[in-house]
Amino acid sequence: MLTVEAAQRAVMGRVGPLPLRSRPLGEASGCVLGEEVLADLDQPPFDKSQVDGFAVRAADLRGDDRWLMLGEEIAAGRPPTRPLGPREAAAIMTGAPLPPGADAVVMIEKTQRVEGRVLVAAEGVRPGQNYLARGREIRAGEAVLRPGGRLNAAAIGLLASVGRTEVVVVPRPRVVVVPTGDELVEPDRVPGPGQIRNSNAAMLRALVLGGGADAEALPIAPDEPGPLAEVLGRGLAADVLLITGGVSAGTRDLVPGTLERLGVAPVFHKVRLRPGKPLWFGVGPPRSEAPGALVFGLPGNPVSGIVGFLLFVRPALDALAARTGGGPPITAHRLLRPCSHVGDRPTYHPARLVEAGDGPALEPLDWAGSSDLRTVAGADGFAILPEGEHTFEPGEIVNFLPLG
Amino acid sequence: MLTVEAAQRAVMGRVGPLPLRSRPLGEASGCVLGEEVLADLDQPPFDKSQVDGFAVRAADLRGDDRWLMLGEEIAAGRPPTRPLGPREAAAIMTGAPLPPGADAVVMIEKTQRVEGRVLVAAEGVRPGQNYLARGREIRAGEAVLRPGGRLNAAAIGLLASVGRTEVVVVPRPRVVVVPTGDELVEPDRVPGPGQIRNSNAAMLRALVLGGGADAEALPIAPDEPGPLAEVLGRGLAADVLLITGGVSAGTRDLVPGTLERLGVAPVFHKVRLRPGKPLWFGVGPPRSEAPGALVFGLPGNPVSGIVGFLLFVRPALDALAARTGGGPPITAHRLLRPCSHVGDRPTYHPARLVEAGDGPALEPLDWAGSSDLRTVAGADGFAILPEGEHTFEPGEIVNFLPLG
Repeated sequence: MLTVEAAQRAVMGRVGPLPLRSRPLGEASGCVLGEEVLADLDQPPFDKSQVDGFAVRAADLRGDDRWLMLGEEIAAGRPPTRPLGPREAAAIMTGAPLPPGADAVVMIEKTQRVEGRVLVAAEGVRPGQNYLARGREIRAGEAVLRPGGRLNAAAIGLLASVGRTEVVVVPRPRVVVVPTGDELVEPDRVPGPGQIRNSNAAMLRALVLGGGADAEALPIAPDEPGPLAEVLGRGLAADVLLITGGVSAGTRDLVPGTLERLGVAPVFHKVRLRPGKPLWFGVGPPRSEAPGALVFGLPGNPVSGIVGFLLFVRPALDALAARTGGGPPITAHRLLRPCSHVGDRPTYHPARLVEAGDGPALEPLDWAGSSDLRTVAGADGFAILPEGEHTFEPGEIVNFLPLG
Repeated sequence: MLTVEAAQRAVMGRVGPLPLRSRPLGEASGCVLGEEVLADLDQPPFDKSQVDGFAVRAADLRGDDRWLMLGEEIAAGRPPTRPLGPREAAAIMTGAPLPPGADAVVMIEKTQRVEGRVLVAAEGVRPGQNYLARGREIRAGEAVLRPGGRLNAAAIGLLASVGRTEVVVVPRPRVVVVPTGDELVEPDRVPGPGQIRNSNAAMLRALVLGGGADAEALPIAPDEPGPLAEVLGRGLAADVLLITGGVSAGTRDLVPGTLERLGVAPVFHKVRLRPGKPLWFGVGPPRSEAPGALVFGLPGNPVSGIVGFLLFVRPALDALAARTGGGPPITAHRLLRPCSHVGDRPTYHPARLVEAGDGPALEPLDWAGSSDLRTVAGADGFAILPEGEHTFEPGEIVNFLPLG
């Protein structure tokens, strides 16, 4: 049986960034840019006033006569209708274009307007003052963004400013969730004898969205070869297919065989960890213009599913999206309480991070075992307890796998 | 003019958690729970096998005779049709219900099946072994989640398991973005003379979504009192109204007057910071079943808008959603490079976080000033340089406001 580390290497060795795609700007935030973006126009596209005041010719104010004739009023969005005349001042608003001939703007606070004239009290008016010359920020044709960076909100604004409504990026991975098992009913139904509710689809959808990917949950697939193959086949069109249930050793656990008949190449089955041992991983047949889906068969037990997701699926989503990483974001913390552990597999034990003066410390939670979802609902993640028999003392450093 | 801290107090003193609302489970992840959630059924709802194997009566295996008759086969989701007979074993799958009379399950690995009989090799089979008794995890009527906690993915799964498709939470804030200004055209248009593209709406939408709220951008509002009032009036139905432009001192800056006529109580205008001084804040008239919208008039300059959002709007979104916080997540880091600053206002200077051995260090970026969105597109946030004249040396500790 593979160790967690060997299984992670087996997954990460088969994952690379998704093929580049054009995406609407509204869906590109947080994605890695896949093209060089050029400015289509100078920015600003005209000499733009940075203040409210009066556009002037600096040379007109070199002598003692500080009075200018008041010309037109230029509002933002309405270009001047004529050049500035000799010894003339045009009233101008922040963001509005300077009239031809003007080479400075005087702030309104340093002027006085008397009928059709303007008294400029400001001393030493210099050419270039208080406006942004056309092309000062960006020249048309210049690269404003280079491929490889993650698009933050400022980059989204910059793309809009150069006229982009779509942009080529490494897209968000598309994940399809398939719950399997004849014992499942959807959450809005009252389970009949022998049935339980499908809680995994809602849970995995929340995990996928939190992992920066798009999620679609398909209806429950029954334990029958035909319908199961139909649903799993649909899932293989996605970048990642998450299947819950049907991967333990029972005679009716049809998932691995059905996947193999659909052309999914198995990579491993079972990992040495607790909870979550019966994890199945394989790679689907190549799709048009994209490599085959990553297929994870997660145990039906919800806590096992969470741990498997955090250790194997979330890092794979990061790699598909070309985000940094290469493994789960494990941190190390002091234990707040003693905690003992006996077992032949490393155990992921629900724990809370508690602020304790010199940084967050780890509080292991009382836990009824791998089917106890209620305790995990109050946890921040999992303390990683190595295999063997060991009592951890308060203050001992333990690794931590965050849930959020 | 208010300091940043006084302005933050003025905002945060007027914000509380939004009224509780019922939300579909698929939209509740990350929200704070607003109700006590009770289990509707025992969990598990029946005695549930934890392994693949044979359901038996432990007492039948106390003697030397290890052979049992093979009874029915019980698959998950298909309840047993009859009680277990004397010296009988029922084949059972993981997750399937035990037949009445059975009190233990023996793993398949410890048995041998020969025609109609089963040889049980396991020693010391104990009652209760390898199954989860009905109600062992959760009793019907018991509280499984209490109000006040944030719903993680495990909590979403738990809610689905007790039959909830909706849940009462502190909802995600709804934010409406209104870009204003006659000089604006939408990004898909080529700006005419004196026009520039509306880059703020796309940028603010990305910031709002990243801040855990829902965003809707309305069309550009012109600098005309009637249409402006109509659009701003629509925005006041949201929890937060973000307006860009129209808040400096120009004669055509109609936003503050229009808001006041719509019943928005002004709280402050202008804050001592750079960039972002002309920030306007007020509170709209009370809505049915909700307090009035928080109204922020952000400067039209995109970098000023980002800084204003991070300092004032994002903490307000956290408070509306009852998430912890109470201010922006400012951290302190060593400077990597010298950086000098002169100014009568604290300045938010674009900077990158760079891994430097003992934690991330701060690299201030060359910056052409408050209209230079391109530099911020490559930044992780802003170094906070206090007012006055100061040269910061490498290694000096400087506060940092993250963008992400």
